[in-house]
Amino acid sequence: MEKPVSGGLEWRINVPDGTSKILAPECSSYCKPWLALKGLVGGLVARVLKFLEKAWALGVSEPKKVIHGIKVGIALSLVSLFYYMRPLHDGVGGNAMWAVLTVVVVFEYTVGATLSKSLNRAAGTFLAGSLGIGVQWMASQSGEKLEPIILGISVFVLAAAATFSRFMPPVKARFDYGAMIFILTFSLVSVSGYRVEKLFEMAHHRLSTIAIGTSLCTLISMLVSPVWAGDELHRLIHRNMEKLAESLEGCVAEYFEDNQSGNPSEEDNSKKAQAYKCVLNSKATEESMANFARWEPAHGPFNFLHPWKEYLKIGALLRNCACCIEALGGRLNSEMQEAGHLKGYFRDASMAVCSHSCNVLRELSMSVKTMTNSSKLGASVAEMNSALQELQNALKSLPTQLNLHQPLPNKSTENKSAARKDSAPPLMGVIPLATLVSLLTEIAARIEETVDGAVKLAELAEFKASNEDKAAQNQPDSNNRSSDNPSRKT
Amino acid sequence: MEKPVSGGLEWRINVPDGTSKILAPECSSYCKPWLALKGLVGGLVARVLKFLEKAWALGVSEPKKVIHGIKVGIALSLVSLFYYMRPLHDGVGGNAMWAVLTVVVVFEYTVGATLSKSLNRAAGTFLAGSLGIGVQWMASQSGEKLEPIILGISVFVLAAAATFSRFMPPVKARFDYGAMIFILTFSLVSVSGYRVEKLFEMAHHRLSTIAIGTSLCTLISMLVSPVWAGDELHRLIHRNMEKLAESLEGCVAEYFEDNQSGNPSEEDNSKKAQAYKCVLNSKATEESMANFARWEPAHGPFNFLHPWKEYLKIGALLRNCACCIEALGGRLNSEMQEAGHLKGYFRDASMAVCSHSCNVLRELSMSVKTMTNSSKLGASVAEMNSALQELQNALKSLPTQLNLHQPLPNKSTENKSAARKDSAPPLMGVIPLATLVSLLTEIAARIEETVDGAVKLAELAEFKASNEDKAAQNQPDSNNRSSDNPSRKT
Repeated sequence: MEKPVSGGLEWRINVPDGTSKILAPECSSYCKPWLALKGLVGGLVARVLKFLEKAWALGVSEPKKVIHGIKVGIALSLVSLFYYMRPLHDGVGGNAMWAVLTVVVVFEYTVGATLSKSLNRAAGTFLAGSLGIGVQWMASQSGEKLEPIILGISVFVLAAAATFSRFMPPVKARFDYGAMIFILTFSLVSVSGYRVEKLFEMAHHRLSTIAIGTSLCTLISMLVSPVWAGDELHRLIHRNMEKLAESLEGCVAEYFEDNQSGNPSEEDNSKKAQAYKCVLNSKATEESMANFARWEPAHGPFNFLHPWKEYLKIGALLRNCACCIEALGGRLNSEMQEAGHLKGYFRDASMAVCSHSCNVLRELSMSVKTMTNSSKLGASVAEMNSALQELQNALKSLPTQLNLHQPLPNKSTENKSAARKDSAPPLMGVIPLATLVSLLTEIAARIEETVDGAVKLAELAEFKASNEDKAAQNQPDSNNRSSDNPSRKT
Repeated sequence: MEKPVSGGLEWRINVPDGTSKILAPECSSYCKPWLALKGLVGGLVARVLKFLEKAWALGVSEPKKVIHGIKVGIALSLVSLFYYMRPLHDGVGGNAMWAVLTVVVVFEYTVGATLSKSLNRAAGTFLAGSLGIGVQWMASQSGEKLEPIILGISVFVLAAAATFSRFMPPVKARFDYGAMIFILTFSLVSVSGYRVEKLFEMAHHRLSTIAIGTSLCTLISMLVSPVWAGDELHRLIHRNMEKLAESLEGCVAEYFEDNQSGNPSEEDNSKKAQAYKCVLNSKATEESMANFARWEPAHGPFNFLHPWKEYLKIGALLRNCACCIEALGGRLNSEMQEAGHLKGYFRDASMAVCSHSCNVLRELSMSVKTMTNSSKLGASVAEMNSALQELQNALKSLPTQLNLHQPLPNKSTENKSAARKDSAPPLMGVIPLATLVSLLTEIAARIEETVDGAVKLAELAEFKASNEDKAAQNQPDSNNRSSDNPSRKT
């Protein structure tokens, strides 16, 4: 297998089919540091380029985030120039620095978050400032020796209490930042060592710079292409409904089309089936958005007291649905593939349930999106339920059909087949499909709960009546939705 | 029905059984404001008392959070007194305020978070400070007219870019605070209007105060009853495993014991069954803990490069299990109650699968908790799989048993019963139990995936061998776990 070496040192690989390959010599030791440096720089450049590429992609897909960056830039340039111009600078004293600090810290992505931080900052500073001046005055009255002790103890007690209060859920959700600013301002004021008269002047300057900073942030965030937390929450909820529909469709389609033909839509289906994952992970975003939305003034179709809490309830119901779709997807992928020969009987009925469920979800999404009472929603729910009933009937009639059309598939492989009669149905083959039917039933039931949640939202938020619906607004909806629900009585 | 009025104005209610009630007169108009005020104050006091009560309960259940408050109090008192004492104060100049600010902003609950914020703050200040001094020098060289323009543009561009970069996931996870400090420091330095020489002095003071603040925070958070993010993550994961076991047990026990006797453990079971909810919602906590844990030095049983990412994978697998348990709980509550007469056949087998699955989860939890390779884990998994096989056998043998023991339950109610033969089993009655078996199979499969994840963690983190296990460490585990898995071949 080995040929003679042709000259000099050389590694050659001889492959059995006759060809041979000469391996290029590895770099000798003197060029290694250079190569390592080259690799390092190259790697760094590649990482930076990759980061920039990702940043570009993010900017293209969500231009609002680029605009937010530009808004912060504008606000900071304005407040910096304000600080830089001497005449203005002298007006608010050396504290003008706090205006810059306020802008950097307070300017958030959504209007609600900016407002919440601004109010927290103003309230925290004001409260802690007045308390600090009081403590300072008390300490200064009690003699030079006691002064540092009183100050130290008051800082310790208040800082510890305020820090602990930040762990309480209601404080954490709404006043976390305010509590931090309270601690900060109180320590700064109480230990500043100034006299009380000078403190009043300082407090005045501090508050006026904070007012300048927060009002600038609020104005820019509300006037220049505003991002409302309420809008984002609203969009998140109706998009999640669409995603669930997509996921359910992909999941069932993948199962039924997989074994029948290797069509190109397969990958598409399995990609669609993963859409529920976003829904499962959206809890934290929903809660913070709902928290910020409460601070926002009326905007677009939303009033000041829009029922944002209902969105959270709908979000939780959607996550319930997503959980069930997840379990369905898992079952379909692992075990159910084996029920191949029985699939045909259920294909049409299952696909019908699936498409009607998706219709309900899409109708609901459209209703929430446009904030109108959908006239078709009741009918869609009724269709979903009747499709479900048909699927259950198909399951019930299965033994008969099987007896007529084909013999027992697992008769010979069964240990206890002696005790069985010929007419017994292939129970083990039916189980996967029974699970499919059962989970589809559960998903439909959960979709109905979501519909109930959305109907409550529609009542509280006073959704408009749709155009076709204005004549007989309440009848079709209430008739269908309160009708006997077959999904609960398999 | 009316009696004469007894004297004066009076409202009397006559009840058909002969008794009568005199209504007390409502408060007249002059006492209303007083009552309103009383109600308001009373309501406020009640809310404050309720808040304090909750705070007390939180403090009792999690004393570490109280200790954290005390730690912050100590750090702030120390740094405040440091600032208050004149001799020290003169040393670091008026910038000593920044030390207080640093302590308030940087001191977080876990050591990892404190370290991460400290490093971010130091790096952000240093980078932005040097860049700011450079830009300041450039601007001062280019004439008085161009100076504000250059400064404004540089602030705008860098602030916009840094703000946008905070939306990028890797930056958001690790350097969010650093980017904010970068913007802050750069704006402050570049527009401060000082000459470059004075800036160097200021930068020196700023950096030294930040060093004082961050080192104080780091020392106190690491030395006084430290809360390690890694510890918290570790505990979260093995507790979640226990919670899943509890939830699964409660869920199945509730189903099988519900209809048989009204024993007092029912409520207990349904309460236990809800434990999976914590697991579903723990994603955000897990991710932030894993992020902070990376910054932490070696502590307790964890090295500096402990594989924290594996915990995230196990967490995701546990959430998959939780999803399935959620679907199972939903099915058990809604539809399956109707399979009453068939339950008996499956009770023991299902309970066996459930208790073996719980054993695996608890064994796994114990193995992760003590960081030892469990010797029983392999055997537990094998037991779970054989219990599963028995349950599936029970399902397979069902038609035979039914034929022997009892007649068709739904024979008479079926439309198409004419086409059926007597030996056909009550398919609709079996469906709920088939779903139960199917979901239990899926849960067992997902538990096995979790076991795989934990085994990988054990390899990477080099778990100790347990005492009984030291002789034949690898054999029982690998034999059982790689053996034929019946859960996939129903």
